[in-house]
Amino acid sequence: MTHQSAVKLGITPRLFAERFGDSAAQAAPGAVFNHPDALAGFAADCEVLTFEHERIDIGLLKALEDTGVLLRPGTKTIQAAFDKIHQRRVLKNRGFQVPAFAEVRGPDDVFDFASEHGWPVVLKTVRAAPPGELGVWIVEDRHEAMKVLAERSNLQLMAEELQAIVKEMVVLVVRRPGGNTRCYPIAEITNQDGACKEIRAPAAVGKRLGAEVVQVALDLANALDTVGVLAVELFLTTEGLVVNELAARPHNAGHWTIENCPTSQFENHVRAVLDLPLGPTWSNAPAAVTINVIGTLDGIDPARHLPEALAVEGAQVHLYGKLPRPGRKLGHVTAVGHDIETARALARRAEAALHGRRPS
Amino acid sequence: MTHQSAVKLGITPRLFAERFGDSAAQAAPGAVFNHPDALAGFAADCEVLTFEHERIDIGLLKALEDTGVLLRPGTKTIQAAFDKIHQRRVLKNRGFQVPAFAEVRGPDDVFDFASEHGWPVVLKTVRAAPPGELGVWIVEDRHEAMKVLAERSNLQLMAEELQAIVKEMVVLVVRRPGGNTRCYPIAEITNQDGACKEIRAPAAVGKRLGAEVVQVALDLANALDTVGVLAVELFLTTEGLVVNELAARPHNAGHWTIENCPTSQFENHVRAVLDLPLGPTWSNAPAAVTINVIGTLDGIDPARHLPEALAVEGAQVHLYGKLPRPGRKLGHVTAVGHDIETARALARRAEAALHGRRPS
Repeated sequence: MTHQSAVKLGITPRLFAERFGDSAAQAAPGAVFNHPDALAGFAADCEVLTFEHERIDIGLLKALEDTGVLLRPGTKTIQAAFDKIHQRRVLKNRGFQVPAFAEVRGPDDVFDFASEHGWPVVLKTVRAAPPGELGVWIVEDRHEAMKVLAERSNLQLMAEELQAIVKEMVVLVVRRPGGNTRCYPIAEITNQDGACKEIRAPAAVGKRLGAEVVQVALDLANALDTVGVLAVELFLTTEGLVVNELAARPHNAGHWTIENCPTSQFENHVRAVLDLPLGPTWSNAPAAVTINVIGTLDGIDPARHLPEALAVEGAQVHLYGKLPRPGRKLGHVTAVGHDIETARALARRAEAALHGRRPS
Repeated sequence: MTHQSAVKLGITPRLFAERFGDSAAQAAPGAVFNHPDALAGFAADCEVLTFEHERIDIGLLKALEDTGVLLRPGTKTIQAAFDKIHQRRVLKNRGFQVPAFAEVRGPDDVFDFASEHGWPVVLKTVRAAPPGELGVWIVEDRHEAMKVLAERSNLQLMAEELQAIVKEMVVLVVRRPGGNTRCYPIAEITNQDGACKEIRAPAAVGKRLGAEVVQVALDLANALDTVGVLAVELFLTTEGLVVNELAARPHNAGHWTIENCPTSQFENHVRAVLDLPLGPTWSNAPAAVTINVIGTLDGIDPARHLPEALAVEGAQVHLYGKLPRPGRKLGHVTAVGHDIETARALARRAEAALHGRRPS
């Protein structure tokens, strides 16, 4: 989607992909694939480098930056975005509210954390979880904690206290080098089985809370000196507003901007990375709802049900051309409307159709 | 743009391009380039074939169809769309109003036509003109006619009577195999130096004329048994409505549908060609204006002025990544708004910015 936004502006970006079957490689011509030493040569041919996920070696990016390659965002932002422990420390030091957290090197760290903050404890991966895999576990006691640690011994984990969440929100800020920023309307998200399932924009928040959320996001973008889209995930808890996570790239919770904003998050990311004027970020229709199309256990391929989904008048169907696997994000549907309920009903019908069922 | 619409639906189309530098080849991965005998092998790997311009050998397409390749639209439509003499005959035989016309094999055909219909005479190419070249000349007398015929001896020409044009309109119909059709709002176009310059949608026409235009377009789509987008260019003359030309593909006069319709002409073309349900074709905002960005004599590259154009708040800038040449279509800008004048002012500002000047 980033590639398409660049092509619209007459720019043909080059893609460095991990594997031949990657979604982006299906859409972008002339992709270079990952092999030893390929990245440096690739980077040398590029005016500026950006990325679309966090499963990248930070050391590799730092080394590139040291040789004069222009990374946008730069490694200062990347480190905060890629490493959730580092992220929490940066946020905390700068006075943003974050959940209590601790590094986990072994079971004792979890037990110590629990004795201070109580059970249950949230365990999560410090780096982005592998695609299609869970990155968050809520453990109720020592036994459950030991089980997750044993099963995920290959992953670096962290502990945090469980939040009494009233609402989960994502706000997207886009920022040019030099500090010009724009903010998209706040979106509200609903998770299912540990993955983001539904995104509603605008979020149902009052003006005061809305202004507070936007201010936090703008302050963060400036504090990190980021370039491009910064997605700020926030919890409204019974104790107030806390910053959950950051992503320094176009975000799944901003896909609705394709259909409902004059400039999508993808186009504004491209504009920011190339230091071009940012486009307007307002909503056209009063409401937009996106539902992620996630692979189910029965292994049904949503692409087989494309005709039924396209028959849902007015729903926008996006499929990523991926092989169906349980838990894998295979696409999304967006609907816009005069109110959230109308848009959601339409999006739900299209999403259900892709799974060959009626909306629940 | 067709490629991007297919990718959105999880479909990765293969591209058969003429040259390496073609715009479409810059956007689509794995393009196959024109070389002897490549087309048959390419076609054998495809479920269905469609096209995006008319500079294709009809005989070649007919031969493909004879070997069982599925062409959408099929050669019946293609012949009427590619050959303007054949097109006029088909239209006339089916009772549609068309300008008087004649085949031109030599100067005498023009002189005979002029003695029946008077000067000036319109000379035009029977097949699509080469990209960036004029395909229409208005000749006032024998001398001017001889000059055009001599200079364009490599092209097959036709003569037609000059119309007293009140308005020039384009209406896009999209049709599935089996006959399901949808029609986009009528657009009104303005030409400059023989090329389409500005497209305004909706056209300023009354309900009765609007209904007549839509009926002509739907009748034509059905008469030709077309599949995909059929663009019908009509003149409102002082004598009434006449059909000027047809194009059986997404059309330059429909680019505004990207921003202002729930389903763009490109996505609906893809849906139709794959026999998938068509999407809605209504307008979101009350008005949309597209202005083509055409290469000027000074050879300025609009891409150099991208920052100024993107600074025009709310204008949608599309550049095609082509080398600038005088008369060449290098991109387009679209603006939507509450009325045509607001949208047009915005589009004009962005188009002027791309040429490094203020709007005229």
